[in-house]
Amino acid sequence: MKIIFDTDPGIDDAMALLYLSKLPEIELLGITTVVGNADIDTTTRNALFLKQQFGLEAPVVRGAGKTLDGVEKAEPVIVHGLNGLGDIALPAVDESGLAPGEASQFIIDTLRAHPGEVTIVAVGRMTNLALALRAAPEVAGLARQVIIMGGAFGYRGRSGNITPAAEANIHGDPVAADEIFAADWPVVAVGLDVTHDIVLDTDYLAALARDAGENGELLRQMCDHYARFYKEIMGLSGLVGHDLLAVTYALFPDWFETRRGPVLVVRDGIAVGQTIQMPETRKGGHPAWAGRPSQAICTGVEAARVLAHFREVTGRP
Amino acid sequence: MKIIFDTDPGIDDAMALLYLSKLPEIELLGITTVVGNADIDTTTRNALFLKQQFGLEAPVVRGAGKTLDGVEKAEPVIVHGLNGLGDIALPAVDESGLAPGEASQFIIDTLRAHPGEVTIVAVGRMTNLALALRAAPEVAGLARQVIIMGGAFGYRGRSGNITPAAEANIHGDPVAADEIFAADWPVVAVGLDVTHDIVLDTDYLAALARDAGENGELLRQMCDHYARFYKEIMGLSGLVGHDLLAVTYALFPDWFETRRGPVLVVRDGIAVGQTIQMPETRKGGHPAWAGRPSQAICTGVEAARVLAHFREVTGRP
Repeated sequence: MKIIFDTDPGIDDAMALLYLSKLPEIELLGITTVVGNADIDTTTRNALFLKQQFGLEAPVVRGAGKTLDGVEKAEPVIVHGLNGLGDIALPAVDESGLAPGEASQFIIDTLRAHPGEVTIVAVGRMTNLALALRAAPEVAGLARQVIIMGGAFGYRGRSGNITPAAEANIHGDPVAADEIFAADWPVVAVGLDVTHDIVLDTDYLAALARDAGENGELLRQMCDHYARFYKEIMGLSGLVGHDLLAVTYALFPDWFETRRGPVLVVRDGIAVGQTIQMPETRKGGHPAWAGRPSQAICTGVEAARVLAHFREVTGRP
Repeated sequence: MKIIFDTDPGIDDAMALLYLSKLPEIELLGITTVVGNADIDTTTRNALFLKQQFGLEAPVVRGAGKTLDGVEKAEPVIVHGLNGLGDIALPAVDESGLAPGEASQFIIDTLRAHPGEVTIVAVGRMTNLALALRAAPEVAGLARQVIIMGGAFGYRGRSGNITPAAEANIHGDPVAADEIFAADWPVVAVGLDVTHDIVLDTDYLAALARDAGENGELLRQMCDHYARFYKEIMGLSGLVGHDLLAVTYALFPDWFETRRGPVLVVRDGIAVGQTIQMPETRKGGHPAWAGRPSQAICTGVEAARVLAHFREVTGRP
């Protein structure tokens, strides 16, 4: 399975990259970066660090440092730390891992090179994807599927995280997200409705650190920071594995329940960044959603299976 | 328990009024009308008809025929029929049941006459309540509580009904609803998250018609129309008892699960009419919700108990 991983590392991005590094069934074609959990210099540096740390061969391609809505947003330093990786000490990174060019063009070129074969897994703001669509709309027809970590559709009271209405990746660039959902490629939204079922508690993280050697210990150290945030804000003893779950969907879609229907993103006002799906089962429709393709949102997941699987995979030699 | 019932009959409004007529523990102080399921002339005529039909002593007081947002909205004739009561044949009504004056002033006067004692149960658009608050903001401090049928907070994928984002009573006057939630009186929102658990299926309606005599048969006839709508639009074999559930809350709040926190209503854009709560348990808060009082939304209900209770009550002589 050919994958482009679009990311803003970020601690749970790092977990997803370790996961990807251990999956022989996945051919990682590129790691594209975007502003989000930190600024673009920082997320790109972190991607380069994680590439060398986890022995990934895929090139890192620098992407958008500004979002399409033109609104300056403070990066959430409180969540991922000043350096985006929980403020662990980072070594110098090998800049030769950085490919020339820019992420949206890389996405276009890669989709054209492998028509119908490439899955994009996007776990940050969707700015690079939207820029690719704007520059070359026809590439929508070339993607196998687009799996995003993003959105909050209210299942089991799962409201947003950045605001009560909105999830952070969508809120970070609502215009880009709205364009992604409107495009004629198959999108699957792995949102808070399911990611909040993937709680990596203290015991789980300790076991991960034990089983996954040096890299497991590195994750545990990053997570110390992240977990403090979750404890403080959400009252959770552990952290939520948002981004890794998007990778799990690529491997095991059958572990998820989904609902189909066109999705709109609220572009302004107090609900900005909210994702609203009109379920396909709803008769009669509504003009604002008309003409948009039906997309899938995840509404349930076999969480225990995911957690066992992730631990097994990251513990591989 | 002293109650003002603010209503736009409406078939499920009629069910709620029959319910109220059989509850000796409730002292119904007034029936205030509002545009919604039909225009204000029709909902007021229907309230007068239901008052005489069910032997209610409370006066009917005519209320708002226009909403506060100034947007003209078509009344949903498809749901409740041209006459608002499923197009059953209606006799001439006794106009002497109509009290002089206007609903918002009646609400103000009644709250002032019984400080701390009156529960407002509002099952239509919240225009009359908002007009009362605008004219006399201090009456918020005089109400015992305000129970509204309205809102959709996404539990179990319960999206809106008038749009995927919005429930009809809120969407019908989002400005009024927003002002209701912002006021310093205790509001409980009985929304689609719970009302869609109250499905009155064909067998249930037949039993109701059998047990509740002439009035039960009248409900069944009205419901024929309403049930056709639900079948066509929602694929449901039966109808949803939205408004009666707000009355049940007044009697048995312990049958409900609730979540507390300030609520905002989206006033414009594609999500117009959406209700968004910031849960109290969420730390850190968000400026848009700051300063608003915490209100309750219903997130679960013991539906079987409600259905058994409603049938028992309406079957009383």
